[in-house]
Amino acid sequence: MDRKSPMSEKPAKIHKPRPISGYPEWLPEERMVEQAWIDQIRAVFEAYGFGSIETPSVEEIEVLTAKGGDTDKEIYAIRRLHDDGGASEGRVALHYDLTVPLARYVAQHYGDLTFPFKRYQIQKAWRGERPQEGRFREFLQCDIDVIDNDELSIEFDAEMPAIIFEVFQRLDIGNVTININNRKILQGFYSGLGIEDVTGVIRIVDKMDKIGVQGVAKQLADEAGLSADMISRCLSLAEIKTPDASFADQVQALGVENETLSKGVEELSFVMNSLGHLPQGVIFADLSIARGFDYYTGTVYESKLADYPEFPSICSGGRYDNLVSSYMNKRLPGVGISFGLTRTFAKMLKEGKLDTNIKSPTQVLVVQLPDTDRELAASTAQALRARGFNVEMYHEAAKMKNQLRYAERKAIPYVWFPAVDRGQSHEVKDMASGEQAPTALDTWQPARI
Amino acid sequence: MDRKSPMSEKPAKIHKPRPISGYPEWLPEERMVEQAWIDQIRAVFEAYGFGSIETPSVEEIEVLTAKGGDTDKEIYAIRRLHDDGGASEGRVALHYDLTVPLARYVAQHYGDLTFPFKRYQIQKAWRGERPQEGRFREFLQCDIDVIDNDELSIEFDAEMPAIIFEVFQRLDIGNVTININNRKILQGFYSGLGIEDVTGVIRIVDKMDKIGVQGVAKQLADEAGLSADMISRCLSLAEIKTPDASFADQVQALGVENETLSKGVEELSFVMNSLGHLPQGVIFADLSIARGFDYYTGTVYESKLADYPEFPSICSGGRYDNLVSSYMNKRLPGVGISFGLTRTFAKMLKEGKLDTNIKSPTQVLVVQLPDTDRELAASTAQALRARGFNVEMYHEAAKMKNQLRYAERKAIPYVWFPAVDRGQSHEVKDMASGEQAPTALDTWQPARI
Repeated sequence: MDRKSPMSEKPAKIHKPRPISGYPEWLPEERMVEQAWIDQIRAVFEAYGFGSIETPSVEEIEVLTAKGGDTDKEIYAIRRLHDDGGASEGRVALHYDLTVPLARYVAQHYGDLTFPFKRYQIQKAWRGERPQEGRFREFLQCDIDVIDNDELSIEFDAEMPAIIFEVFQRLDIGNVTININNRKILQGFYSGLGIEDVTGVIRIVDKMDKIGVQGVAKQLADEAGLSADMISRCLSLAEIKTPDASFADQVQALGVENETLSKGVEELSFVMNSLGHLPQGVIFADLSIARGFDYYTGTVYESKLADYPEFPSICSGGRYDNLVSSYMNKRLPGVGISFGLTRTFAKMLKEGKLDTNIKSPTQVLVVQLPDTDRELAASTAQALRARGFNVEMYHEAAKMKNQLRYAERKAIPYVWFPAVDRGQSHEVKDMASGEQAPTALDTWQPARI
Repeated sequence: MDRKSPMSEKPAKIHKPRPISGYPEWLPEERMVEQAWIDQIRAVFEAYGFGSIETPSVEEIEVLTAKGGDTDKEIYAIRRLHDDGGASEGRVALHYDLTVPLARYVAQHYGDLTFPFKRYQIQKAWRGERPQEGRFREFLQCDIDVIDNDELSIEFDAEMPAIIFEVFQRLDIGNVTININNRKILQGFYSGLGIEDVTGVIRIVDKMDKIGVQGVAKQLADEAGLSADMISRCLSLAEIKTPDASFADQVQALGVENETLSKGVEELSFVMNSLGHLPQGVIFADLSIARGFDYYTGTVYESKLADYPEFPSICSGGRYDNLVSSYMNKRLPGVGISFGLTRTFAKMLKEGKLDTNIKSPTQVLVVQLPDTDRELAASTAQALRARGFNVEMYHEAAKMKNQLRYAERKAIPYVWFPAVDRGQSHEVKDMASGEQAPTALDTWQPARI
């Protein structure tokens, strides 16, 4: 592969680089933790049979904007610096989530996929937003979705929170609550109350976090024109939050009858009953959750860091009826969830919750002894690598003090002194305890690592 | 994390998506191989003590163009679709390699890094080139570099080919030759011959692959004005190719004396002698290699697929004296190499060399039996996952024929029939052999996987 950077000539002037707002970057020891997170997330997704796909960073602008909506203004188009007006210039833009790319992928490769199609996707996405806590312009998102033809089993709605709970457990980010609702409950309940602009009311109730109960009540009266009794019942519905399927009785007690409502209660009950094996305090049926976007048609999820209730949802998603209708003439319902890795990682880092003591993957530093052949150190390092260890050979027969200081600075746990001749033994120094002891190349087992 | 794609409304019209030229995309079974490649590459890099960094996809345009050169026209700038003229608009562009980002990273985080700084980076890069075989607009590149203060040990020049050889071995891409030269040999030899425009001559000789020996000889006469004797000796130098350090005698036999030449011969001899443990036929001192870019100052590498000699280098790089001089006032020499993953992967795929039979990570499909509680299948699947297997539960108690067909279509190797009651045993069907046998949940060991 070509490397294209011109580097050795004397520069005309020095351009001191600045961090770019909204584009996070981590030090090596932080990146090690991020990479371990990605590995854990992948392992969980694969344990449930989800396979990876990766889509290009760009989509046709027509694909990204096929539905209109207020996302358009956040889209980053790409264009060559010296645009020559070629046919492909200005035709593509960076994706702003992984759901549009999934829809396009399914439409484009429909004949090559097996349904129900279970995919995960761990990729960057880009949005031209004003950067703030929890909002980045470039961020890593981890998505799983299941797509099927015509009908999609409710079983998958129940599987999503179980998968996400396992991810949270492995990441060790403190307690997380996963709150679940079903849009059919909201739609059916409001319809049953005689409300016409159901979507408008859902949008108002969804602001509970931001404007509080009083604010919602006021807007329901002023903007949606609801009566005091209707407002009271809407607020009662939004207050229902149970750790199991008992929400159903509380809904029934509000005395609204509607077919869509019954269907939603049935679906959410199935999901809650299927999650009984998870620990208490994790999963809640929370009837205040609406997930503002109109395209959700059933189950909706959001997840909050229990220690930071003000922090936005770190993982959300839901069920949609029609993934690919913009791109092909088929009905493909799906359910999916997105974990905001960058958002969550940056928060944990800021709060000092991550162990960034490991500075490099190196487990053993093999030193070069004075007056010995470098071959001795090189073959020792190679033998340890063949045993599966991550090994650096120090690059010169420097003073031992300097070689040990390098190991200390990189937090390398073991330093290896090769046996100089047959009579001698290899020795290994445990940098944490300071102990140095004889050992053998083919049997050494580290206490840590 | 928010999902922003509006999906459920009826679209105004259907936009049939087209593949975007130069942006490759793989089917799930192809992506599985690509991901396995990335895992193998990471494992090798880490085995040698290289740590991961990841830089944003964008850099300031001033950073990317700090040195000028002909790369500028390939740069993709990003800009919001509805540009509001904000301060950050049009200020950043996608990186076109991973070396400029490394230089900027080192300059920006200098005080937080331990030197010699060994990093790997596996990321996409973007170039506005005309797509053709081996050339993409978006591609995955795998880089390792070592950077040190003031001086960098030649030991690292010798380590690069050893690492890359291990990568090639694990990827099973057939035989690869790694050809090594040292720019000091070319510079010293040409200077010693009395040539003034050394860079110009290097550029001409570097075209050997494209225009042949006759073409090079003609240009050396017509454009560089060399005498017949000088041309003859230049061509003799370029013909030297040895599997060991014996190239040094052949250089000496050409009768040119020069200090830089001697230094180059010494360095390349060290590198070749350090690689004696690799199998025959892999490593060559090849004095025709120049790697056109002026910034290389010592060792240079390129690697060719032995089965496809016309295909461009899949992995190249070299030693440079001054990584960060555009961004800070320090001398930081380095040596590095880039493996073109997308280029190589696409070639292997096209040639039918990849095993894409595995369609999903799922190892076991647990079926739902008719007339049994779904809980039986769910808890069985969960128990198998707890043992470390990748497991799907079929999503409904469909006809067994349909459940088995799903396993077949996804090439899932084992299908599990849960024990319905205490008296019964679990059974597992090996889909390859068709054999079905009783087994136990806590002791089952698959023959394959």
